[in-house]
Amino acid sequence: MRLVFLSIAPEFFESYLASHAVQLARRQGHSVEVSDLRDFADGSFRQVSDSPFGGGRGVVLRALPIFRAVEALTGRRLQERPGQPGGADGSLVAALTPTGVPFVQRTAHRYAACDTLVLLCGRFEGIDERALEAVDERISIGDYIVTGGEIPAMAVADAALRLLPGVLKAGSAEEESFETGLLEYPQYTQPAELFGQRVPEVLCSGDHAKVVAWRQAAAVRATARFRPDLLETIDLTSQKR
Amino acid sequence: MRLVFLSIAPEFFESYLASHAVQLARRQGHSVEVSDLRDFADGSFRQVSDSPFGGGRGVVLRALPIFRAVEALTGRRLQERPGQPGGADGSLVAALTPTGVPFVQRTAHRYAACDTLVLLCGRFEGIDERALEAVDERISIGDYIVTGGEIPAMAVADAALRLLPGVLKAGSAEEESFETGLLEYPQYTQPAELFGQRVPEVLCSGDHAKVVAWRQAAAVRATARFRPDLLETIDLTSQKR
Repeated sequence: MRLVFLSIAPEFFESYLASHAVQLARRQGHSVEVSDLRDFADGSFRQVSDSPFGGGRGVVLRALPIFRAVEALTGRRLQERPGQPGGADGSLVAALTPTGVPFVQRTAHRYAACDTLVLLCGRFEGIDERALEAVDERISIGDYIVTGGEIPAMAVADAALRLLPGVLKAGSAEEESFETGLLEYPQYTQPAELFGQRVPEVLCSGDHAKVVAWRQAAAVRATARFRPDLLETIDLTSQKR
Repeated sequence: MRLVFLSIAPEFFESYLASHAVQLARRQGHSVEVSDLRDFADGSFRQVSDSPFGGGRGVVLRALPIFRAVEALTGRRLQERPGQPGGADGSLVAALTPTGVPFVQRTAHRYAACDTLVLLCGRFEGIDERALEAVDERISIGDYIVTGGEIPAMAVADAALRLLPGVLKAGSAEEESFETGLLEYPQYTQPAELFGQRVPEVLCSGDHAKVVAWRQAAAVRATARFRPDLLETIDLTSQKR
């Protein structure tokens, strides 16, 4: 997989690119890189933003540098076929914007299967709508606003990269929250007693069947407590949403 | 405000700490810092994790270093009163975990009003449940899994920091997505025509009332297209969820 962060703030990714997950992905032959959107803008000022039509504060990311960048990164011919996203080539271009559809674990699995994944980071008051119509999808990581798409792009990249074989230890993802439709059961580690609070007896019993049963019930209780909304859509008999 | 990332991977925050938003917050007198959870663990190995009780792969973050760190950062006496979170002192300790309640824009406003905000970053197979019960709340940034709580903590911090006076330009947040209950209207900037696609006529008309009406209708259309779920809970007459 080739994963590209497309951003006007490439320095934002330095710490993440040095992280363990990215190093593991690279060791498996995957590429994780940053492309500076300013490299696709004209003139000595490489202007990537301008005032919004119709008035209002702030600036909006211009469409032309985005068209050019997506063409350069994916080999598509957007200028000849605006509004006709590609994807048949195994590439996917997703824009990070609060006006997108929610990114969920299913999306992470889909992104992890791409040959090339370009994550376009929104900024300022947003991205020119014509550029948004030219990318494959627009996604949001949650119902809150951050300064730019860089942190959201790292969240999306990390969720996808850790699903690649060899990046996360085999089997480690299957019991996690959102894979089963339930939150994961509570975890405990040493010591068995801390400030008068003991680990649940059953977890120290060595009885595997009882541990499994306790964890399943505890996962349902945790979901009912913190995410009752998830219980409305889950089929508890199959443990799949 | 004093914002503290509590993490076993402090190097993860370097790029973010150098970002414009953090610089602006610091210029307004706020503090943004990272605390290494390992500094609160014992012995020369400063062990912060151990195998889960009840078996299973991976390791779990130990509770004791978290108790100590929260005590040191907030002045609370958790060991004497386990399970009795503080908060009356103006401090708030939130753990980033996929098993938390969803973080939303309302939460960002609440966090921005804290004197001290500690963001505890989950890792590995999770955090010892006794530590989770000792913090004020557990939050999740979305229904997907990332390698650790560091990226989620940055998303939460950034959402809160930008609401502090002087960090974002005055008034800039009020029309945004999730503040009105609708997604924000589409934005356009120069040029007026690009590859045959023109900016909507009304936005170039100079008629302010028409622009406002178009934007309101376009915001409803965008919400219906990408987030129909939001329309179910909104009161369009008051424009507030």
